[in-house]
Amino acid sequence: MKVVGISGSLRKGSFNTAALRAAQGLAPEGMTIEIAEIGDLPLYNDDLRAAGYPPSAERFRAQLASSDAILFVTPEYNYSVSGVLKNAIDWGSRPPNQPFEGKPIAMMGASGGLLGTARAQYHLRQMMVFLDAFPLNKPEVMIGQAGKKFDESGKLIDEPTREFIRKLLESLRDWTNRLKKGAP
Amino acid sequence: MKVVGISGSLRKGSFNTAALRAAQGLAPEGMTIEIAEIGDLPLYNDDLRAAGYPPSAERFRAQLASSDAILFVTPEYNYSVSGVLKNAIDWGSRPPNQPFEGKPIAMMGASGGLLGTARAQYHLRQMMVFLDAFPLNKPEVMIGQAGKKFDESGKLIDEPTREFIRKLLESLRDWTNRLKKGAP
Amino acid sequence: MKVVGISGSLRKGSFNTAALRAAQGLAPEGMTIEIAEIGDLPLYNDDLRAAGYPPSAERFRAQLASSDAILFVTPEYNYSVSGVLKNAIDWGSRPPNQPFEGKPIAMMGASGGLLGTARAQYHLRQMMVFLDAFPLNKPEVMIGQAGKKFDESGKLIDEPTREFIRKLLESLRDWTNRLKKGAP
Amino acid sequence: MKVVGISGSLRKGSFNTAALRAAQGLAPEGMTIEIAEIGDLPLYNDDLRAAGYPPSAERFRAQLASSDAILFVTPEYNYSVSGVLKNAIDWGSRPPNQPFEGKPIAMMGASGGLLGTARAQYHLRQMMVFLDAFPLNKPEVMIGQAGKKFDESGKLIDEPTREFIRKLLESLRDWTNRLKKGAP
Repeated sequence: MKVVGISGSLRKGSFNTAALRAAQGLAPEGMTIEIAEIGDLPLYNDDLRAAGYPPSAERFRAQLASSDAILFVTPEYNYSVSGVLKNAIDWGSRPPNQPFEGKPIAMMGASGGLLGTARAQYHLRQMMVFLDAFPLNKPEVMIGQAGKKFDESGKLIDEPTREFIRKLLESLRDWTNRLKKGAP
Repeated sequence: MKVVGISGSLRKGSFNTAALRAAQGLAPEGMTIEIAEIGDLPLYNDDLRAAGYPPSAERFRAQLASSDAILFVTPEYNYSVSGVLKNAIDWGSRPPNQPFEGKPIAMMGASGGLLGTARAQYHLRQMMVFLDAFPLNKPEVMIGQAGKKFDESGKLIDEPTREFIRKLLESLRDWTNRLKKGAP
Repeated sequence: MKVVGISGSLRKGSFNTAALRAAQGLAPEGMTIEIAEIGDLPLYNDDLRAAGYPPSAERFRAQLASSDAILFVTPEYNYSVSGVLKNAIDWGSRPPNQPFEGKPIAMMGASGGLLGTARAQYHLRQMMVFLDAFPLNKPEVMIGQAGKKFDESGKLIDEPTREFIRKLLESLRDWTNRLKKGAP
Repeated sequence: MKVVGISGSLRKGSFNTAALRAAQGLAPEGMTIEIAEIGDLPLYNDDLRAAGYPPSAERFRAQLASSDAILFVTPEYNYSVSGVLKNAIDWGSRPPNQPFEGKPIAMMGASGGLLGTARAQYHLRQMMVFLDAFPLNKPEVMIGQAGKKFDESGKLIDEPTREFIRKLLESLRDWTNRLKKGAP
């Protein structure tokens, strides 16, 4: 089972990217998480797209299309997802094929405050309605007070958070299998 | 396949209740839609619940529990679902069992304006995350300018809208079957 | 300055009602907070309204109309405001006059979890757009882990939370004055 | 009164940019609308910012800071604002100063569908809470079926829409004056 993981933060020391790397080590047997590069996508411009997808967008879209499921790791900027993440979703969502369609989705996020990106995640869920993707309801992984949960090298050292991520990925595996097995 | 349909409006001439009645006649073979009564529920009060569910709540909860899927038909009041509908959801969501859990969900709504209850439906979708229910993504049935689409007796006479509802119910049937067939 | 305070919970031991009572004692000089009764409103039904507002709705609407500002204290049920609160808003929002229009608004809420009703408060904010009311942006008072912040008699004993509420009410006073002074 | 206008679409023939240009011609006496360039902003990266704002971000932030009010013109991509617009907001919102703070805000948007960017606009409103900016409640300008309302050269030819925009700008002027006159 191949999962594509997308972090919405480009900062080198990002807690969200660190959480995504942690997820790679916490994935259940049989699941691999491949991290997508979205920092080299241009700002979305439909004229650009119409002239032919730029190579970075082409690569990102192919990666999405070849995945069994997608894991979003979103920071919260200004009470929503980052522009960086939204820009990637915009590139991913356009014709001819729409690679998010029908995909099982898991999401998580980390922030310094108490809410742990809750507001961003509900915006992300609304986007999934348009994309006709299938987000997991539970568990909701909102890593608040992130500064206390990662060490200086970016390693996730908070055991309860590690356990939440483990459960999220197991749920994603089960949800992916359920959607596949039930497919007409 | 038994679907419980809930209209969020108590007005006798409600377009939403009329749309729900129309849905009963548009259901695909093998699906029956039973209309839930929510107008006799008291305002939710957790002290009441703790003392034992009132009979109207007991009945509503049993009806939800015995359903294969749920169809919400929501008006939009003040850019959200009606208090009447939210009150019913509040009664339906409490211990010991939580009858919305795991249920396939379809939603639609009717309003006089152009947006056809879009804002209410996204609020409803957020509630479904907590309830761990599974709303359909598509089609989204938002019946705008409802005054032109029903006749004086409350019959839905707009053919495109009838076709949207037909598709919604077929999608609900397929989604219910998919979730059941895929279940572990 | 007369503020009408509305708690969205009818439970006797409600943390939200307790927070509203605490607010009465924390109001700045010159502000009084009058608690609205919403537990005796019937479920909203537009046929009822058209036949003449029931006395409880008449009373509630008059109370809103005579206020300088409104303070909502909302629990979070199913990731939104309670049906009880929404029902009160629905009664308050209908013709001939619309007593929320132009009113300065403050909101807060208490919950057992960490998020302290954040999700409910953003839904409430969306309702304020329709009602053309003016919610304060800051501070946002989200009282998480409420069980630790009130004593057994319902007294708010957490000093940082008391300070947040004090600031909320001072901000509401300033915001109300600003809107009044600037009015054309 | 200087308003900075921001279109969230980079497409040359964008209806949103066309609507913003139309707004320039519909502004009431004494108001000028200056269009911000956001297409040359890099993707937001907090490491970049910490090393010193890039010139395009510096310019954009200075433009915001020098404005009396801000007009957002947002497309709707994937049921939210465009990544392009969110990226600009992210650049605009960071220390040392936060130029959105306290600003009067108007918003509008254009789309091919019926909803006219409603979903994007409510996301945008939630961002304004964090930014402590003051969005107008009314009128809400949602230009649906945009293809019928602009001519081939991008001129807004639909008179009711022109009138809506005129009213939006007059309301923005009045709201800006009210907030200024009422300021402590």
